[in-house]
Amino acid sequence: MWLVGARGSVGTTAALGLAALAEGHAPPEGCVTAGPAFDGVPLPGWRDLVLGGHDVSDVSLTKHAEALVDAGMIPAPLLAATAHALDAADAEVRPGYRGPLAPGQSQRDVAERLAADLTAFAARHGLARVVVVDVSSTEPPVDPLPEHTDPRALEAAASEPGRQVLPPSSVAAWAAVLAGAAYAGFTPSAGMGLPALRALAAERGVPVAGQDGKTGQTWLRTALAPAFADRGLRVLSWAGTNLLGGGDGATLADPDAVRSKLATKTRGLRDLTGTDVTPLHIDHVPDLGDVKVAWDHVHARGFLGSRITLQTTWSAHDSMLAAPMVLDLARLLALAHARGEAGVVPALGFFFKDPWGSDVHAAADQARALVTWAATAR
Amino acid sequence: MWLVGARGSVGTTAALGLAALAEGHAPPEGCVTAGPAFDGVPLPGWRDLVLGGHDVSDVSLTKHAEALVDAGMIPAPLLAATAHALDAADAEVRPGYRGPLAPGQSQRDVAERLAADLTAFAARHGLARVVVVDVSSTEPPVDPLPEHTDPRALEAAASEPGRQVLPPSSVAAWAAVLAGAAYAGFTPSAGMGLPALRALAAERGVPVAGQDGKTGQTWLRTALAPAFADRGLRVLSWAGTNLLGGGDGATLADPDAVRSKLATKTRGLRDLTGTDVTPLHIDHVPDLGDVKVAWDHVHARGFLGSRITLQTTWSAHDSMLAAPMVLDLARLLALAHARGEAGVVPALGFFFKDPWGSDVHAAADQARALVTWAATAR
Amino acid sequence: MWLVGARGSVGTTAALGLAALAEGHAPPEGCVTAGPAFDGVPLPGWRDLVLGGHDVSDVSLTKHAEALVDAGMIPAPLLAATAHALDAADAEVRPGYRGPLAPGQSQRDVAERLAADLTAFAARHGLARVVVVDVSSTEPPVDPLPEHTDPRALEAAASEPGRQVLPPSSVAAWAAVLAGAAYAGFTPSAGMGLPALRALAAERGVPVAGQDGKTGQTWLRTALAPAFADRGLRVLSWAGTNLLGGGDGATLADPDAVRSKLATKTRGLRDLTGTDVTPLHIDHVPDLGDVKVAWDHVHARGFLGSRITLQTTWSAHDSMLAAPMVLDLARLLALAHARGEAGVVPALGFFFKDPWGSDVHAAADQARALVTWAATAR
Amino acid sequence: MWLVGARGSVGTTAALGLAALAEGHAPPEGCVTAGPAFDGVPLPGWRDLVLGGHDVSDVSLTKHAEALVDAGMIPAPLLAATAHALDAADAEVRPGYRGPLAPGQSQRDVAERLAADLTAFAARHGLARVVVVDVSSTEPPVDPLPEHTDPRALEAAASEPGRQVLPPSSVAAWAAVLAGAAYAGFTPSAGMGLPALRALAAERGVPVAGQDGKTGQTWLRTALAPAFADRGLRVLSWAGTNLLGGGDGATLADPDAVRSKLATKTRGLRDLTGTDVTPLHIDHVPDLGDVKVAWDHVHARGFLGSRITLQTTWSAHDSMLAAPMVLDLARLLALAHARGEAGVVPALGFFFKDPWGSDVHAAADQARALVTWAATAR
Repeated sequence: MWLVGARGSVGTTAALGLAALAEGHAPPEGCVTAGPAFDGVPLPGWRDLVLGGHDVSDVSLTKHAEALVDAGMIPAPLLAATAHALDAADAEVRPGYRGPLAPGQSQRDVAERLAADLTAFAARHGLARVVVVDVSSTEPPVDPLPEHTDPRALEAAASEPGRQVLPPSSVAAWAAVLAGAAYAGFTPSAGMGLPALRALAAERGVPVAGQDGKTGQTWLRTALAPAFADRGLRVLSWAGTNLLGGGDGATLADPDAVRSKLATKTRGLRDLTGTDVTPLHIDHVPDLGDVKVAWDHVHARGFLGSRITLQTTWSAHDSMLAAPMVLDLARLLALAHARGEAGVVPALGFFFKDPWGSDVHAAADQARALVTWAATAR
Repeated sequence: MWLVGARGSVGTTAALGLAALAEGHAPPEGCVTAGPAFDGVPLPGWRDLVLGGHDVSDVSLTKHAEALVDAGMIPAPLLAATAHALDAADAEVRPGYRGPLAPGQSQRDVAERLAADLTAFAARHGLARVVVVDVSSTEPPVDPLPEHTDPRALEAAASEPGRQVLPPSSVAAWAAVLAGAAYAGFTPSAGMGLPALRALAAERGVPVAGQDGKTGQTWLRTALAPAFADRGLRVLSWAGTNLLGGGDGATLADPDAVRSKLATKTRGLRDLTGTDVTPLHIDHVPDLGDVKVAWDHVHARGFLGSRITLQTTWSAHDSMLAAPMVLDLARLLALAHARGEAGVVPALGFFFKDPWGSDVHAAADQARALVTWAATAR
Repeated sequence: MWLVGARGSVGTTAALGLAALAEGHAPPEGCVTAGPAFDGVPLPGWRDLVLGGHDVSDVSLTKHAEALVDAGMIPAPLLAATAHALDAADAEVRPGYRGPLAPGQSQRDVAERLAADLTAFAARHGLARVVVVDVSSTEPPVDPLPEHTDPRALEAAASEPGRQVLPPSSVAAWAAVLAGAAYAGFTPSAGMGLPALRALAAERGVPVAGQDGKTGQTWLRTALAPAFADRGLRVLSWAGTNLLGGGDGATLADPDAVRSKLATKTRGLRDLTGTDVTPLHIDHVPDLGDVKVAWDHVHARGFLGSRITLQTTWSAHDSMLAAPMVLDLARLLALAHARGEAGVVPALGFFFKDPWGSDVHAAADQARALVTWAATAR
Repeated sequence: MWLVGARGSVGTTAALGLAALAEGHAPPEGCVTAGPAFDGVPLPGWRDLVLGGHDVSDVSLTKHAEALVDAGMIPAPLLAATAHALDAADAEVRPGYRGPLAPGQSQRDVAERLAADLTAFAARHGLARVVVVDVSSTEPPVDPLPEHTDPRALEAAASEPGRQVLPPSSVAAWAAVLAGAAYAGFTPSAGMGLPALRALAAERGVPVAGQDGKTGQTWLRTALAPAFADRGLRVLSWAGTNLLGGGDGATLADPDAVRSKLATKTRGLRDLTGTDVTPLHIDHVPDLGDVKVAWDHVHARGFLGSRITLQTTWSAHDSMLAAPMVLDLARLLALAHARGEAGVVPALGFFFKDPWGSDVHAAADQARALVTWAATAR
């Protein structure tokens, strides 16, 4: 498992959690693939996974974990029990790429350098395969270019020294393809979302999945909205607001970055309800730390025009929701890779706000599709 | 469509709503069977349904509807447009039975009298079939008797003058069987829930469904709880409280009656979550009128023992949720009857807190089962 | 009572409500001055108040009231009982001013025309005095000019044909001064808020009060925030969001207009809690009609750094909160005028988000100050 | 400071917190008397307070504190820094009394034994005075006896061997009087609430205050309810529910004990709002630990009968709210004692759900009364 943005909150929590599960310090609660529906499915075990990654930060996993302990998110004894594993994982973190390019350097040069890190990592540990999961902080939306839809044109443009045809997240995605690694895009950043890159992944025979982890509020909405539809209740508006601190909160306080997020957060809801009245806000509230609080107000019309309202308030540590899904994706993409699936794996849409290769957003339908897909591997 | 408790809030709303739909005064929002999934299914149309019922109350449907207009639940113009239909339906309401028995009278006498009302109603209007829906107020739980599980013993006991072997709701259910009418139990009262009666229904070849309409809070819970399970999130407690006024609120202020309700409300939740910590209250708050407000607090444990909480506040006119489901059940049981289905119809579990013939409580799974069943009739 | 923006939702509700109170169709619930604390205070009675106003809209009060009936805000019988009074009030509505100026016209010309309407109104009905209340829709913030702080310079500039030195709301406020009428600014628009105008009001001997009616969420916050302080609980953040439809919602969907509102809404909170983390949003949700739903999330730190959270959800018809306060202000400013008070009346700060002449925001302290002031008139 | 029930959650938190404040490990947030309004008031400093108490439990303060650390309520470093102080306090805990009496023993014997513990404690540490605060778990309501209102009759009855005329909490209160110690009743138990005991306290010249700490939901209600009244908004119903785990939750799961609590919780609300519709529940939800979650739903009627609803959800560690108030009471009663006040001190009503010697429940008014009283000591 190779994490782009390994030293962030999600990466740190995933690393610590993987060690805790492998060594039996915690039950696999929050892990979809630990459920009875996955019994007998040939997924790699917790002990089979080795962790490495790219990051632009110098703050070690252990240092970050200590901050999460101080914030009351991670119990101190759990860090003590897994510190050695965090150090080992941190030793496998290589410098990432967020731009700009060095003089005379091309994005292909960067992608090949990143790919070499993956190959060396696999060789060093004698791994059967590598799964890359992008958990780095959200980028602003990219302006579409012709090269983004044409693999050959993209390869040519990315070979021009100094030309930045790809956002950093897409360079990292391309590196996965070059190294023959499976890939999951857990953020709303472009990453492997560009058609040209997904075509290259299919050519290269690597499975990919995305996009933007459906961890909390959006997951809740896609569990509730279909229920209204099944009852014939007409949703008139679905308004929401999010409060969060932590690094993610700071990133999303940037109006540019937040645009990517808000777009993926409301798309599914509009599909499921048919309403366009879905005002949504994300506020940076530093004192909340990593806790995210999300409030939704649903106004629906029922029989004879009667008024129905539903409010939900969701509160959870965002990284604690994301980390187990990252581990699930690593196991499931390893399975897909082993089974020779190439390109987008639609059955993994369950994990994403903006599912690639599927227009299904309803949480229950996605869960069934995932279980059905996994069952075929028994 | 024959309603036991026709003059209550649900009966009045169903009668007024049926007229509004039949005459195009309102869209069928809130009706499950009006959704695209039921296109081409040979269900009776709104205009095909004729309404009658039993009740112990002398307050006419129109009088009750006026009260609902004053309470702000029903728009005055809608009552004006449907008053004639309410008068017609009210003319088809016959005296119900809530006990006690007249001297020398047996419960069989009563059941036959009620059955005769059904038969005459069908003959008077040249109906192909009758569907009985019990929407009368909730009875206290009944103490089990041997006769409740043995059809022959039940018939014998119910023939003894003065012997009250059945609660009133079950006498009404038996009457439906005697008249060869389909039956739905929309309340938690015993009704057709007694094994002996369901056996008689199967013998007589009538389809039955129940029990206790899953209209609001419980429906919401059965949409949410499976989503937690699909994510591997462990629900530790699910506490709730209900505030409601209106007639139902007054009935449930009776600690005896409320026991029946609370039992069915939490059963599904325990199955879906595995937790036994599900404190639940129903408070009579007269000033809320027919509006029911329900608050739930869910405490779950996620990855590495992290704390997750979800609160929901649901607010709706309870009768406006129940009435369209009553109409749906009349259409669907008419279909089942026409297709010759006898005894419990498990596919109708979608509508009930305590589904007969099924242990499926998850709302999405129930919706799929219902649609699949209906599709086979296309 | 002269309303600037008489034909809006607040104006319509105030007009209908005044008639309902004068004729005994409704109890004075929601009216501060109807409480026991005001017994024996020589305030004008409901029957003593005559209504007129300015507006740029041609939609009559009755037409607007009918819309509020359809929206379920006002009971139909109440409109029927007060329609005659609405017609009478509507006959006293004169064309308002929202700019621009006619060729060769100065803002002084406009102000004198508006003042003449006030004087004629008073003469026509033999009124002892006139109280102007600005309930028109919110204007964007104004760029400060030197003339706004210098009465003489303002009078000179406003006399120049074609020069728009004042926003429309301030022209209306100036008109009140010219006519010797008391004035209350119920909106966040500049109005009488410009120092030069308040100086003119003091010179002319008219009492004024403002600014921006503290009707719902902000009132609630100023009741709660002092309680946290009294307990020594440290508020770290106070995040909120507002959902509303109706005309006000549409106006505040304009990012310019909403800036005025958000500024006054958070000022008091910062004073009372000391925190700067007060993200706040106002979303236009048309399907909610005149209902405003406001959610707040308070995060505080208690003993030994322990975490405390409070959420509030407020739901009410915004115009139904504002209208009685408008009537209260008319009565209280009439009293102030009768007592010869000139310039800002700080004791009326109770009614406003941004109280002129006072830095007290705590609701309980403002209530006491108001009652104390009124008591001196017994 | 002498705590009855010293080894419970509140006692443990107060002991640990006092040490943290005295040694500067935490700011005095949550302490009323640390606010600017008390500058210059001659209250004992944190370092001046010595802690002891009675308890029937053998679990040491440190052991209990460790459990609170594991529960995530108290930070581990804070316990480490204060463990020595907890050991010292625990060494001053003497066996308490919860009944029954030993053969031949009278309740006077017990009270004198408890009083001797107080006197010895004061002597051992050279204390100017002792303040007893009852923080023991809630007792069921007591059946009134004539002796409870007649000091002499009470003393006689309590001298009869084997006669249990007083509940345990009242024996502890009597002991305080016998030892000349000030007393605060922080629980709803009878304690010093019996008229005969309060008379004895007055005779003996000791100041007393009570009853039942107003820590969370009730405090919030008494901050909000007066604001509704000041606005002329008519509260129709105020429904609430409490979820809590921990020891207090277990105690209140006992229907008998909870009766005492529910009575004091709703009394003030009825006074402030005039409504009798105040359904309230307390549910034991063990998985919540010491966190208490309280939901309230307020339904009010405003102008022209319009509907207003307010919901509040309060979440906090109950012991973290209570402990600083216990420290405040110790300081304030020490001041009252030093000033020679005897009997009930009404100005301390701010701290209690059921204030002795006062019918003021409004939080803001109580805060002002408290500050005014303290100011007279400057």
